[in-house]
Amino acid sequence: MQLRVDLLPKENYRDVVIVIDVLRTGTLAPLLFSRGLDTLFVSPSIRAARRLAEERGLLLLGERDGLPPEGFNYGASPAELARADVAGRSAVLLSGNGPRALSVTDGARHVLLGSFYNADALVAQAAALAETEVALVCTGLDGDEDLDDTLCAGYLAAQLRRRLPGARLGGGALFALSLLRAFPSPVSALWQSRSGHHLRRLDLTGDLAVGSLVSQTGAVPRLTERGEDLYLFTAAPPAD
Amino acid sequence: MQLRVDLLPKENYRDVVIVIDVLRTGTLAPLLFSRGLDTLFVSPSIRAARRLAEERGLLLLGERDGLPPEGFNYGASPAELARADVAGRSAVLLSGNGPRALSVTDGARHVLLGSFYNADALVAQAAALAETEVALVCTGLDGDEDLDDTLCAGYLAAQLRRRLPGARLGGGALFALSLLRAFPSPVSALWQSRSGHHLRRLDLTGDLAVGSLVSQTGAVPRLTERGEDLYLFTAAPPAD
Repeated sequence: MQLRVDLLPKENYRDVVIVIDVLRTGTLAPLLFSRGLDTLFVSPSIRAARRLAEERGLLLLGERDGLPPEGFNYGASPAELARADVAGRSAVLLSGNGPRALSVTDGARHVLLGSFYNADALVAQAAALAETEVALVCTGLDGDEDLDDTLCAGYLAAQLRRRLPGARLGGGALFALSLLRAFPSPVSALWQSRSGHHLRRLDLTGDLAVGSLVSQTGAVPRLTERGEDLYLFTAAPPAD
Repeated sequence: MQLRVDLLPKENYRDVVIVIDVLRTGTLAPLLFSRGLDTLFVSPSIRAARRLAEERGLLLLGERDGLPPEGFNYGASPAELARADVAGRSAVLLSGNGPRALSVTDGARHVLLGSFYNADALVAQAAALAETEVALVCTGLDGDEDLDDTLCAGYLAAQLRRRLPGARLGGGALFALSLLRAFPSPVSALWQSRSGHHLRRLDLTGDLAVGSLVSQTGAVPRLTERGEDLYLFTAAPPAD
């Protein structure tokens, strides 16, 4: 068994992938499922998102430059969406960073999505599904590494290492684990990350707080279908 | 002015590059120049290194699996070489990691080599030479990021930021700077790095100590010629 961490999306994923996007898609998605969301579509295209929402009567979520575009029901803030009524609904989320990472995972058997917020459940799910490899794939920000995702990868790698005794750890995994000792609490890393700086400028510090919460839900968004500019997630059944 | 940090060698280097390899080529090279070495050839090929050493009567330095191959004068340990008499001599160093990083820098105007050991001098030299960009390129280890080089990049980036007011910092630079706060002393990062683990297994902890020393010399190895499987360094004249 191989335990792999990529600080940025790479390629050659074959078995289980966990896409990590702490601030914010990987926190927002499990939060929405924990509140009863039925299906989440993720798309990088505002046109595809709008069309789908209109055709299927979906909630339209997402931001451009920190604000929901015209006609959107909500932004992409977990702190804001934590109060929204999404039970039994489906939604489409406009996101740039998430789809970039998802697009390289098409060879993987299972793709899960998450962050600190659903950490324990992610780990249980990945350990149950894995045959040869668990790859923790950080989305980063605009093509560069970011601290929030790297630290979360270290946190998940530490748990997975206990779950998968004898797993071989790659160089990225050891790098991420070494950060874990230096940042004992997620919130300081989130605060210092570039994604965190961006949210602080937008006065969305509530999302830093929500993103720092660990294992708040057992909901694990699992990729069940991929189309052109579109990724469909449903909640995975509990692993144990 | 752009201040760029790459956690692994990438491409498109045009102006000033600092190749960082804390454990150990980027520490060994300035140490050798500080002790009067005249010229340092670096090669990834044991055959090329042997031939050159024989043709030109050079010191032959390097390791395979932690030991100097047959006929080599020394390994690649800065702690060991700190006691060797190299004044007025030239040497060829067998290295895998260093040349991998050097090979992608052929578009750069200036390529410098170093680590914590010659940090202040590297920064002064890079700031004096730069026209549009300083790129800090971590060599990493076997194709993955490593903590020793990343932390050193953060350290150099912090100094360069003061020297180049108004420089735009890329995502990698901000990532490396955030590590600097978490690891206030190089030695803990070196100890935890994969390169550090490797040296600890070989009982070469003296190299962790030497690699943790900051700004011990004004010597800055500068790439002056590149051939097939061969990189030639001489000491740059002092920048200020």
